[in-house]
Amino acid sequence: MSDAVPYRRLEKNDAAVLLVDHQTGLCNLVRDFSDDDFKNCVLALADSAKYFKLPTILTTSFENGPNGPLVPEIKELFPDAPYIARPGNINAWDNEDFVKAVKATGKKQLIIAGVVTEVCVAFPALSARAEGYEVFVVTDASGTFNKTTRDAAWLRMQAAGVQLMTWFGMACELHRDWRNDIEGLGQLFSNHLPAYRNLMNSYGARR
Amino acid sequence: MSDAVPYRRLEKNDAAVLLVDHQTGLCNLVRDFSDDDFKNCVLALADSAKYFKLPTILTTSFENGPNGPLVPEIKELFPDAPYIARPGNINAWDNEDFVKAVKATGKKQLIIAGVVTEVCVAFPALSARAEGYEVFVVTDASGTFNKTTRDAAWLRMQAAGVQLMTWFGMACELHRDWRNDIEGLGQLFSNHLPAYRNLMNSYGARR
Amino acid sequence: MSDAVPYRRLEKNDAAVLLVDHQTGLCNLVRDFSDDDFKNCVLALADSAKYFKLPTILTTSFENGPNGPLVPEIKELFPDAPYIARPGNINAWDNEDFVKAVKATGKKQLIIAGVVTEVCVAFPALSARAEGYEVFVVTDASGTFNKTTRDAAWLRMQAAGVQLMTWFGMACELHRDWRNDIEGLGQLFSNHLPAYRNLMNSYGARR
Amino acid sequence: MSDAVPYRRLEKNDAAVLLVDHQTGLCNLVRDFSDDDFKNCVLALADSAKYFKLPTILTTSFENGPNGPLVPEIKELFPDAPYIARPGNINAWDNEDFVKAVKATGKKQLIIAGVVTEVCVAFPALSARAEGYEVFVVTDASGTFNKTTRDAAWLRMQAAGVQLMTWFGMACELHRDWRNDIEGLGQLFSNHLPAYRNLMNSYGARR
Amino acid sequence: MSDAVPYRRLEKNDAAVLLVDHQTGLCNLVRDFSDDDFKNCVLALADSAKYFKLPTILTTSFENGPNGPLVPEIKELFPDAPYIARPGNINAWDNEDFVKAVKATGKKQLIIAGVVTEVCVAFPALSARAEGYEVFVVTDASGTFNKTTRDAAWLRMQAAGVQLMTWFGMACELHRDWRNDIEGLGQLFSNHLPAYRNLMNSYGARR
Amino acid sequence: MSDAVPYRRLEKNDAAVLLVDHQTGLCNLVRDFSDDDFKNCVLALADSAKYFKLPTILTTSFENGPNGPLVPEIKELFPDAPYIARPGNINAWDNEDFVKAVKATGKKQLIIAGVVTEVCVAFPALSARAEGYEVFVVTDASGTFNKTTRDAAWLRMQAAGVQLMTWFGMACELHRDWRNDIEGLGQLFSNHLPAYRNLMNSYGARR
Amino acid sequence: MSDAVPYRRLEKNDAAVLLVDHQTGLCNLVRDFSDDDFKNCVLALADSAKYFKLPTILTTSFENGPNGPLVPEIKELFPDAPYIARPGNINAWDNEDFVKAVKATGKKQLIIAGVVTEVCVAFPALSARAEGYEVFVVTDASGTFNKTTRDAAWLRMQAAGVQLMTWFGMACELHRDWRNDIEGLGQLFSNHLPAYRNLMNSYGARR
Amino acid sequence: MSDAVPYRRLEKNDAAVLLVDHQTGLCNLVRDFSDDDFKNCVLALADSAKYFKLPTILTTSFENGPNGPLVPEIKELFPDAPYIARPGNINAWDNEDFVKAVKATGKKQLIIAGVVTEVCVAFPALSARAEGYEVFVVTDASGTFNKTTRDAAWLRMQAAGVQLMTWFGMACELHRDWRNDIEGLGQLFSNHLPAYRNLMNSYGARR
Repeated sequence: MSDAVPYRRLEKNDAAVLLVDHQTGLCNLVRDFSDDDFKNCVLALADSAKYFKLPTILTTSFENGPNGPLVPEIKELFPDAPYIARPGNINAWDNEDFVKAVKATGKKQLIIAGVVTEVCVAFPALSARAEGYEVFVVTDASGTFNKTTRDAAWLRMQAAGVQLMTWFGMACELHRDWRNDIEGLGQLFSNHLPAYRNLMNSYGARR
Repeated sequence: MSDAVPYRRLEKNDAAVLLVDHQTGLCNLVRDFSDDDFKNCVLALADSAKYFKLPTILTTSFENGPNGPLVPEIKELFPDAPYIARPGNINAWDNEDFVKAVKATGKKQLIIAGVVTEVCVAFPALSARAEGYEVFVVTDASGTFNKTTRDAAWLRMQAAGVQLMTWFGMACELHRDWRNDIEGLGQLFSNHLPAYRNLMNSYGARR
Repeated sequence: MSDAVPYRRLEKNDAAVLLVDHQTGLCNLVRDFSDDDFKNCVLALADSAKYFKLPTILTTSFENGPNGPLVPEIKELFPDAPYIARPGNINAWDNEDFVKAVKATGKKQLIIAGVVTEVCVAFPALSARAEGYEVFVVTDASGTFNKTTRDAAWLRMQAAGVQLMTWFGMACELHRDWRNDIEGLGQLFSNHLPAYRNLMNSYGARR
Repeated sequence: MSDAVPYRRLEKNDAAVLLVDHQTGLCNLVRDFSDDDFKNCVLALADSAKYFKLPTILTTSFENGPNGPLVPEIKELFPDAPYIARPGNINAWDNEDFVKAVKATGKKQLIIAGVVTEVCVAFPALSARAEGYEVFVVTDASGTFNKTTRDAAWLRMQAAGVQLMTWFGMACELHRDWRNDIEGLGQLFSNHLPAYRNLMNSYGARR
Repeated sequence: MSDAVPYRRLEKNDAAVLLVDHQTGLCNLVRDFSDDDFKNCVLALADSAKYFKLPTILTTSFENGPNGPLVPEIKELFPDAPYIARPGNINAWDNEDFVKAVKATGKKQLIIAGVVTEVCVAFPALSARAEGYEVFVVTDASGTFNKTTRDAAWLRMQAAGVQLMTWFGMACELHRDWRNDIEGLGQLFSNHLPAYRNLMNSYGARR
Repeated sequence: MSDAVPYRRLEKNDAAVLLVDHQTGLCNLVRDFSDDDFKNCVLALADSAKYFKLPTILTTSFENGPNGPLVPEIKELFPDAPYIARPGNINAWDNEDFVKAVKATGKKQLIIAGVVTEVCVAFPALSARAEGYEVFVVTDASGTFNKTTRDAAWLRMQAAGVQLMTWFGMACELHRDWRNDIEGLGQLFSNHLPAYRNLMNSYGARR
Repeated sequence: MSDAVPYRRLEKNDAAVLLVDHQTGLCNLVRDFSDDDFKNCVLALADSAKYFKLPTILTTSFENGPNGPLVPEIKELFPDAPYIARPGNINAWDNEDFVKAVKATGKKQLIIAGVVTEVCVAFPALSARAEGYEVFVVTDASGTFNKTTRDAAWLRMQAAGVQLMTWFGMACELHRDWRNDIEGLGQLFSNHLPAYRNLMNSYGARR
Repeated sequence: MSDAVPYRRLEKNDAAVLLVDHQTGLCNLVRDFSDDDFKNCVLALADSAKYFKLPTILTTSFENGPNGPLVPEIKELFPDAPYIARPGNINAWDNEDFVKAVKATGKKQLIIAGVVTEVCVAFPALSARAEGYEVFVVTDASGTFNKTTRDAAWLRMQAAGVQLMTWFGMACELHRDWRNDIEGLGQLFSNHLPAYRNLMNSYGARR
């Protein structure tokens, strides 16, 4: 039995993160998540990238125009990350500097998130997939105009062999074993999963 | 023409805040908001109470049992607030110390939020209303098991003359005029309204 | 300031429970709750009535026809309760035996639930209200064809002074104080609130 | 205790039915019900009016224009009913012939349904209410552009003392007692409540 | 029988329109309508105000800040309307110039819409109501952060005697009779009700 | 480029219809459609099968038990169809008589619908697919306990090469060309698509 | 690793647009989008086709019957486009003139949208795919009776190798680089994405 | 025609059940089911495993921490089952003891459920699939943070050849034929399908 898309597992040493167009103007176009949920998931992905020390590449589109600047929290988390302000390419993969930066990481697994899902995320995801990369889209750190648009984008990507993830799934798949760092992972979850934080606080109160 | 419930306007000098049973265990029962939304709204209400220097009263039910401790962030925000750990009364208004603390504020407007809506919020809201207080329930900082339960609780409270608010409406009604403190209110909104924060960051980038 | 519907508080000694037409056929018409949720809430209400020793009256409509027999669990819980198999009255309040049974309880507060909401519940609720009873409808132990129907029924009842409750709110309002019986109430909640049961089990494991 | 809107009970001998603008064009504007549900409820209301021999008044707006002709099934059910093709009045109550027809029925209870809810239904409902009629709106035989519009219309009508019903609630309230005609009412329900029909067929198979 | 809020009917000669804070930044905070729906309804309300020649008052809050300028289409529709750029008052009714402008219209019926519903709309609506105005809120031309917030704001306003409308209901109530101007009203509907436009085009093709 | 599931087109002469367990008891378990929608779609599929003279096979499971008899309308439509009352096989394909009846049709395309989707439909669909049949499931004439269950069943079937259809898509794909019988197809649609019926009635009124 | 459906990227010079049955009658059957959303997306697709100068083919089914005429705005946008009024073929691909027109464009990528999704869109999409075309369905410019129908149609098309797009994704994939024409693309987006228009107006006000 | 994922049918003698991390703390994170539905489905799966005497393996993660103990009902049902308290591996398949226990069953079909879906379920499901097992995920006995997360997890698993089931589908596929044990299966369904229980009770009352 041969599966359409055999399992490819995220591996800390093989993965890079691409954050595409999380800009203040564009983020205000997102309607398939509540604002609080989306903000939390984007920052959770960013914090996870940082935590796992994954090479991370930032790119934006027309920061000086209506799209607005990169969300400040992201900028601050990755002061030294390659930062490609694309002069006009809609698909980041059409930008030579961006692809060069991706290749420079030497990684074969690409974790992608951005705004909006069907364009800024799907285009480079599909392009990278077509070049043989293993591609993982972080669905809850990627937003768009409405759920219909999102559903169509997901099915297009699924059909092309992209693996649909969430930031939490990604973090767990990368971490592999709590024993690698219980405190660190716990802190990451406590910061971005309110219900898990409640569990921890309930537990802590009783210890 | 006489209205069922004539408008009563929140007035900074007339209002006190009652935070009822925002405990880590109970908060994990809330299903009528996403976890991120609820956490944000509860903290936004708490930050607003602090910002407007409203007398604030904390109360909990069985902190040492399954209900869990008060959410730590709230505890930290109000280190000196009256804190009534009720020994068993379900309706906080049945607790003499609680009512005494309320009366000690000398305020006639009570802003109430808590978990769960139809009990910990509705009971003291209805009791206070019956004693002539003007009662404002902060609906998005109050959570419960599901939307059906919430809807029923809202209608019961509406019928009894309780005014249904949100933390944002409450903050705006209290502040009255941006000129009273543009920076402060802006910071409050930036911290708890992701989309408004985006507007401010977009604006700031262009100034 | 006079409210449309001043707060009337449930009082253990003043209240009777009317369970109207929870029959196996009729229950399969309910679409405004998931089957599991509805079954759980109906039994939770019944268990609560039992727990608080409230006089309880059962009534059914055409048990030998398509409406089906009373749900067996209810029958078993109240073997000695007045049981009025109405020969045809749609509004239970039109049945003399039923009203007689209600009056025989000597209570002025009536807690009503049944199937379907806009008929079997709303009709006696409105009739009782019109006769001066304080009426409390347990919304989540009352089901009907769809949410539109339910919403309309709720608004009609709210306008007529009926108080909309849930089984949990009812139980809490009746119990008043955990200290009256911590074990008993805890058991009731553990049996009918899966998330609360989880809290208790988590807590118990850590004690 | 005085309620905002005391219970007024539908009484077969006191009630007339007003069907407003159920026209083929207008019906295709309805989006707050599935097409099947809406068609079924409108015909169920019409069949009920017929069954209970309630005086019924039909009215339309611009049948020869885009609004389209009255739904044929309704026309056929009431060949002799007063039929007021309004020359332009949007609120049917502004049409003298219509009001004259209503008054000619001599009834004080008006059951109203139509398309669209916030206009063709709400306007005459509010006007009739203002003139002292007891007004019952059949919510599921009244449709409009979307749920937001419907919700606003319902709350406006509720506040003005209109009672919100469904066709099933109306039929049950009018019938009072199954024994008045078991076969007839059963047939009505079997025709318009698929799940109840299933109950009856299951039952019939086992008798 | 006395209703909580007796019917007050919109009357062309008695009504003024208040458009509050429909600014480009604030409009991007709206999440309780799809963007297309909200844009359409706001412009439909504006076009209706124009069409019925209702005195219209514009007001904004901090146009030079993150809130952004008034939506340009509105500005263009009412070049000569009183335009109050509030220096800081959150409740427009706290601004003397605004209230003066309202009073200058000499109207006793106020039609209000704006962004966000629970603040920019509800505050002046409640204030005007408290001063005896008949207040009509256009719900679908008023938007806010989410449906929970909207629902709470609607119930608060309903309780205080505000009548909840939609732009379509408002236009119909004002127009009274198609014969006053068939072409004009038809054009208004064709521009803002796609399904009605389809009906008209289908009809036109067959004439 | 090779597709996972190449297009197989329904062909009137190659297709048979299998109606599985549309029984009165089982139909009352369906919660992923409104009752009116489901009834309409099931009958629409049955009428279509009749209209296109497709060999149709009926099968039921325990008609004399709680599952109830076959829906009478279906029984009446196909008095001479093979009717396999399965003595116990859950997957109809496990029943030799059923498979024999299928094979006797000589068709290679199987159109399947039934109750419940993930069992009575999915099992024979997957079995038939595994034996090389082209399988088309009529999704809206197949119902189950809830949407989660349905979604899972759809994805399982999609992955196995089953084509997901609706009764309307099926009828259109079989008919090919309106000119084959305008009246007949029009009647079918008028009977089962209320909005299309409205279009036809609007059109007819203007001819 | 070989994907089920390798990425095929839209290329301005390789693509043609097929608009199938966007007729006034049929559009009023659409229920899986709000009317405003659907109108906007259809016109956005049409404007995009125009903007990118893609060969566009129009086709309709029975314009003189209940289906109604082609939406006038589309007719006006493409006065010289091939226009195939199909005499009866339901699947446009069964119409020789239509296929001839498609082939005459010389393009291998087909962008398809229409009403209703599972028939007028899916049939030619699947047929074209089976003949080796790269097929892209614009999901938000294609509408149908309800979401269940849409979901089934999407999965059927996905399985057959059709790529699911939206008009915005399509426009972005075709445009490739903002620098090709910033003004033009910006205008297209401003006209059809209200929230993006707000961003641009906010930005413009601050420049 | 070769399908992406040919049908693999559950076979009683070939299948083992893996219950992963159904712990009291983790279960309170579940938001994609109502609490009652989820509790019922998890226990239904457990009861089914028991009923079919399938080898069942239990595993937990950090029972002594915030995740909480295994749900007691499960523990009691399988007192002798292999019980692997993982010392830290997030993917149970990374735990040697767990895999050893799986292999010791000698089964090639694995039925998996757990909390949370995208991690505790998806990881071992994908790992087992990659090693050639036939994998069946019981979707309604597996829960997670929200529906978006669930949808993404389902699509990832579907693409990798995992078969998505429900507990009811699983039980039916395993049982094959009611005649194998009518009483037993009926009892299982009666305990976990309230609507089916109602059918049985209605039936029983009429026998």
